[in-house]
Amino acid sequence: MNETEWLAEFASALKRSDIEEATGLFSDECYWRDLVAFTWNIVTLESRSAIADMLKARLADLRPDSFKATDRKGWFTFETSVGRGTGHLRLKDGKAWTLFTALMELKGFEEKQGATRPLGTRHGAVRGRVTWTDQRRADAAELGYARQPFVLIVGGGQGGLGLGARLKRLGVPTLIVDRHPRPGDAWRNRYKSLCLHDPVWYDHLPYLPFPDHWPIYTPKDKMGDWLEAYATLMELDYWSSTTCRSASFDEKSRTWTVVVDREGQEVTLTPQHLVLATGMSGFPEIPRFPGADIFRGTQHHSSRHPGGEAWAGKRCVVVGSNNSAHDIAADLWEHGADVTLLQRSPTLVVRSETLARNRPLYSQEAVDSGITTEIADLTTASMPYGAQPAGLRSVVERIKREDADFYDRLRKAGFKLTFGEDETGIGAMYPRRGSGYYIDVGASELIADGRIKLKSGVEIERLTEEAVVLKDGSELKADLVVYATGYGSMNQWAAQLISPEVADKVGKCWGLGSGTAKDPGPWEGELRNMWKPTAQENLWFHGGNLMQSRLYSIFLSLQLKARLEGLPTPVYAQAPVHHKA
Amino acid sequence: MNETEWLAEFASALKRSDIEEATGLFSDECYWRDLVAFTWNIVTLESRSAIADMLKARLADLRPDSFKATDRKGWFTFETSVGRGTGHLRLKDGKAWTLFTALMELKGFEEKQGATRPLGTRHGAVRGRVTWTDQRRADAAELGYARQPFVLIVGGGQGGLGLGARLKRLGVPTLIVDRHPRPGDAWRNRYKSLCLHDPVWYDHLPYLPFPDHWPIYTPKDKMGDWLEAYATLMELDYWSSTTCRSASFDEKSRTWTVVVDREGQEVTLTPQHLVLATGMSGFPEIPRFPGADIFRGTQHHSSRHPGGEAWAGKRCVVVGSNNSAHDIAADLWEHGADVTLLQRSPTLVVRSETLARNRPLYSQEAVDSGITTEIADLTTASMPYGAQPAGLRSVVERIKREDADFYDRLRKAGFKLTFGEDETGIGAMYPRRGSGYYIDVGASELIADGRIKLKSGVEIERLTEEAVVLKDGSELKADLVVYATGYGSMNQWAAQLISPEVADKVGKCWGLGSGTAKDPGPWEGELRNMWKPTAQENLWFHGGNLMQSRLYSIFLSLQLKARLEGLPTPVYAQAPVHHKA
Repeated sequence: MNETEWLAEFASALKRSDIEEATGLFSDECYWRDLVAFTWNIVTLESRSAIADMLKARLADLRPDSFKATDRKGWFTFETSVGRGTGHLRLKDGKAWTLFTALMELKGFEEKQGATRPLGTRHGAVRGRVTWTDQRRADAAELGYARQPFVLIVGGGQGGLGLGARLKRLGVPTLIVDRHPRPGDAWRNRYKSLCLHDPVWYDHLPYLPFPDHWPIYTPKDKMGDWLEAYATLMELDYWSSTTCRSASFDEKSRTWTVVVDREGQEVTLTPQHLVLATGMSGFPEIPRFPGADIFRGTQHHSSRHPGGEAWAGKRCVVVGSNNSAHDIAADLWEHGADVTLLQRSPTLVVRSETLARNRPLYSQEAVDSGITTEIADLTTASMPYGAQPAGLRSVVERIKREDADFYDRLRKAGFKLTFGEDETGIGAMYPRRGSGYYIDVGASELIADGRIKLKSGVEIERLTEEAVVLKDGSELKADLVVYATGYGSMNQWAAQLISPEVADKVGKCWGLGSGTAKDPGPWEGELRNMWKPTAQENLWFHGGNLMQSRLYSIFLSLQLKARLEGLPTPVYAQAPVHHKA
Repeated sequence: MNETEWLAEFASALKRSDIEEATGLFSDECYWRDLVAFTWNIVTLESRSAIADMLKARLADLRPDSFKATDRKGWFTFETSVGRGTGHLRLKDGKAWTLFTALMELKGFEEKQGATRPLGTRHGAVRGRVTWTDQRRADAAELGYARQPFVLIVGGGQGGLGLGARLKRLGVPTLIVDRHPRPGDAWRNRYKSLCLHDPVWYDHLPYLPFPDHWPIYTPKDKMGDWLEAYATLMELDYWSSTTCRSASFDEKSRTWTVVVDREGQEVTLTPQHLVLATGMSGFPEIPRFPGADIFRGTQHHSSRHPGGEAWAGKRCVVVGSNNSAHDIAADLWEHGADVTLLQRSPTLVVRSETLARNRPLYSQEAVDSGITTEIADLTTASMPYGAQPAGLRSVVERIKREDADFYDRLRKAGFKLTFGEDETGIGAMYPRRGSGYYIDVGASELIADGRIKLKSGVEIERLTEEAVVLKDGSELKADLVVYATGYGSMNQWAAQLISPEVADKVGKCWGLGSGTAKDPGPWEGELRNMWKPTAQENLWFHGGNLMQSRLYSIFLSLQLKARLEGLPTPVYAQAPVHHKA
């Protein structure tokens, strides 16, 4: 049986509500990953019985139909009672190994684009004409005061902006608030050598792709300018210089009360939905070492580090060994500082070029061969997390082979390497914990040849007035200590803005339940709490890298639109909360 | 003989330098339109002998080769000794009726895009690293002071911006100066109901198309914001609030000396090339009527008209009957003014929807069927002006039929209509004189039913303290007179900025030499002085509507790049100057 034949049988079984026949089309090891289309949730069903249960619960309501294979192998489109979707299928011996279904639009609530775009004016003679600009200004002035947004997005970085743009096209009244004076400032304010670590093909925002001369690795200020222009050109309602003070949900009115400080004025907002798009990370984590209070040099978290300009000839200790630690150490070295990197635990390192080469869906070659960003994104999404390890391990093996010399040199310098506890590399480590790795853009060579000094596998015992003392007794004289020690969970934002109780109720964000470091089990098969209903009604988390923000904002925006329009949205298989914030 | 066969024979004849055989492949009535590929000029050759002459002059130098038909009927690609081109062919009875050749890139000087885009950073460890932002800021600070631009573009509207973007991608050091405080202000400052009269598919700027929800008719402020973002995102060197004081060319050093006032500071620039992109029009033309000095009401040119807000209940006379006159009259009416339109000569009117329907290359249907903006533009360009009248007349006939009622109502209201002296409609009138028409978005109905009053076919004799007196003796009491009387030629900018002598030397801009009103003969077959070498060395004119600015900036930028790189650029068939400025 090929994909087209399988699809026809599957469609026919669903039409006849023959769940046994439908599930019989799946192999023993099978996965059905659904993005909102069947479950109003983001769920992977990992067995025939799990699939059968879902179909029993949802089939009558959904009436899936019109399954059609597309020209691209494995891909198909379909409809349900409420929407249109895209799907993908991988067979093993004629049976489904992975099935992927994604809701792409709601019937009757399609985005206005192409043929349905607005006219932009009213032709004809209109006394008291209200122009586009009049209307836009009036809307912007009213929103948050005379008229409440349906959705409030806290955080106006790439995540908030892309989601805002999608909600705008769907006609969902949305307000974005951000603490910085200008969109893009979160990028502008970082150390000056910062560029995106992912290549341009991975980084497009919705609707307005970068032009084809855009550099491969976007420099931070250029990214800032793009985001700022994006907010304007997409006509987003965006309050800059606005800080969120508190948020609480009234179960009766099912409305949030959110108090914000907008340029010094307190404003109370009452949206129905609250989206935290405050970044995948929570607050800076700064270890507290004895003696930190007497240390006479400068010490700060990596997020506060302005760059190496002031540190030529000075002794600098960078605590940590992930992306920021490496970038900051290299930047300090480039400015002539004496730098020591303090690696506390084994780190996954992968060369940027190697990573790019192993992500062929996001490349110039992919573009040239007709793979659009949407195809690349859906292809990536079509592989369930549970089915990924074998493929990821073979990528790791290839990378280890290709870059054997590179890794040998790092090891010889004393650097502790890991490729993940189960050798699944960065592809698994990122969804599991969102940390623990360095995508190498140059610092590793500096470490390998000793230009950046390395202390590895040893913890800090205390600080003195002028040094960092390690547990092995050695001492590093220091003028600067940078704590590149990461961030807490996204959930900390919920604790701070709403309450610790709500943060605990919602539980940990991110992570799959893999049972590896920083991702305790049980296995959940999907990222916790991301882009899908949480245990706190009308509270949502949005974030991830640029590709994830772009892709999953589709599904988050459709969930919000459905709620705005009062469509029934029965959430199937709401994930239980195993870990408090 | 079909197109592919014809192309093979043509290519073979050229390869053998058999000019007789090559020209024998053209029909008696024939046109070869060349955009820079064969002639380093924009020229239409309109006979076999003209074609033979050109080939005699250029063939040895160019060595055209590698002609290849593409999948799209009539289209082909080719190469010359210096570049790669696109061409198009229309046969009549197996012989060429129209041939079109366009230079698309210079070999060895291709735009950096796709696979050749910049990296955006330098991976590896670089002491004294200069980041993208450092470099960009240093470049911007130097340009015009420590380092001179190769090209100075005067005027930073859509024309200057699009050309600037192309030159940037080609690595041609370019500075754009504009008198407004912000890019886009030329749009923002106009009357508030203004929208683009062409639909969105016609209006894209190079490299960064509008997203697909962009309104069909872009409102003026939205256009302003787009242009402002464009300047930033394309990293153009753009001096706003900068007025050009004088320009002179030194024949010896072949360099311009241009004095500008940049925010109150005088700066002397010495570019090698000067591009006037100051708008297709020159200065406002205001007729001088006796009594204008004693008229007690307000009078101003349409370009100064702020909109109808202040004129509710007031008596307003709008002099003129082209686009601005109609737009302003309708806007005044919408604000409750008592409006009279004073039509002095017959006007071409075409309904916006009708025009859009008759321009199928620029439509959602075209996009959906795979017609890219580039294909649409080149298809439009592929039809030589001399070959257009028959086709244009049939469009006019169809429009007259489709909108017969509309035109009847206008005529009954006393409106004097024309479809061009030879019934070729707006399609010919625009290149001939760039004026004389109204693309109806609503004012015509107001005129037809008398809500806007009309005086037609009668000139103003004089103004009194409170009225406009017409030559038929009638009098129009007026609180406001708007002179929507058009603009002078683009050439006036050359007269003002450079000298009347240079303006005369260069001669009239725009117009084909059709021998119709405002476009005196002899026939030239191409727009005078636009986007091609002029009689003044190193002086260029750029402009036109958004589609023309987008398309012809390709060829202007390639001509400038070739000169930067010192390629030989022998200009074939430089047009003689028949009309002084």
